[in-house]
Amino acid sequence: MSGMADSARKQRLAQFLDDVWGAGDVSAVPRYVAERYTIHNDPGDPWDGQTLTRDGFRARLVASRAVAPDQRFEPVRMVEQGDTVAVAWRWRGTHTGAAPGLPQPTGRVLTMTGATFYDFDADDQLTGHWQIADRLGVYRQMTE
Amino acid sequence: MSGMADSARKQRLAQFLDDVWGAGDVSAVPRYVAERYTIHNDPGDPWDGQTLTRDGFRARLVASRAVAPDQRFEPVRMVEQGDTVAVAWRWRGTHTGAAPGLPQPTGRVLTMTGATFYDFDADDQLTGHWQIADRLGVYRQMTE
Repeated sequence: MSGMADSARKQRLAQFLDDVWGAGDVSAVPRYVAERYTIHNDPGDPWDGQTLTRDGFRARLVASRAVAPDQRFEPVRMVEQGDTVAVAWRWRGTHTGAAPGLPQPTGRVLTMTGATFYDFDADDQLTGHWQIADRLGVYRQMTE
Repeated sequence: MSGMADSARKQRLAQFLDDVWGAGDVSAVPRYVAERYTIHNDPGDPWDGQTLTRDGFRARLVASRAVAPDQRFEPVRMVEQGDTVAVAWRWRGTHTGAAPGLPQPTGRVLTMTGATFYDFDADDQLTGHWQIADRLGVYRQMTE
């Protein structure tokens, strides 16, 4: 893999994906997320285009994780330049929760790949992202 | 935008996206693409997981572009480290061609976002990519 977690910010990002998105620890949000967090591009995400407070980020976290509470993100590539780390990832989770616009829970183990450009500020807090996930692939796993 | 085409490889990648994917110039392939090109991740691409010769790359280019021959990729972010440039992009094209697994041509102008990690060799030739595109978004534009 190219440049996996070989810098402080990459390590921090990997930890954020584990603690916040993996474990779902809402109390960890202020450790990683700046007071304003902008979602620049994230097709299908109900918060696409919005700038969130930390309370808003926590609300998005709780709602998004409800579909597959045992979810885990595994970084497969990380590329860092300036204040941005681009991460290619694999996601896995068991489909046990309901959410608006999604099929009823299937109990299936779902997998998905995606890529996210994360922006940091001078205090190494995350200020936002630009993201694409393979929504079509995961919808098919829920419905076929 | 963060770090747009501010290096030789970023400029080269932007030119590749214009000349090869935008204009569809098959004769330009050897200028940009190494003798072996590996598609590490590209859900929905019929060549996902394969290593292509330049002839194979040209065949993929011609088949892929047939759906929307006036297509253009617009880089919106580029992040470079080591031999990799990660690019976030917007795509636009008119749906005039047929392809296996896709709806019949609608004549609609389609848009899509995606992200690609491109790998270079020591001669600045492209050796492969890891990619995600918002397939669900573009399928919906073809069908709804």
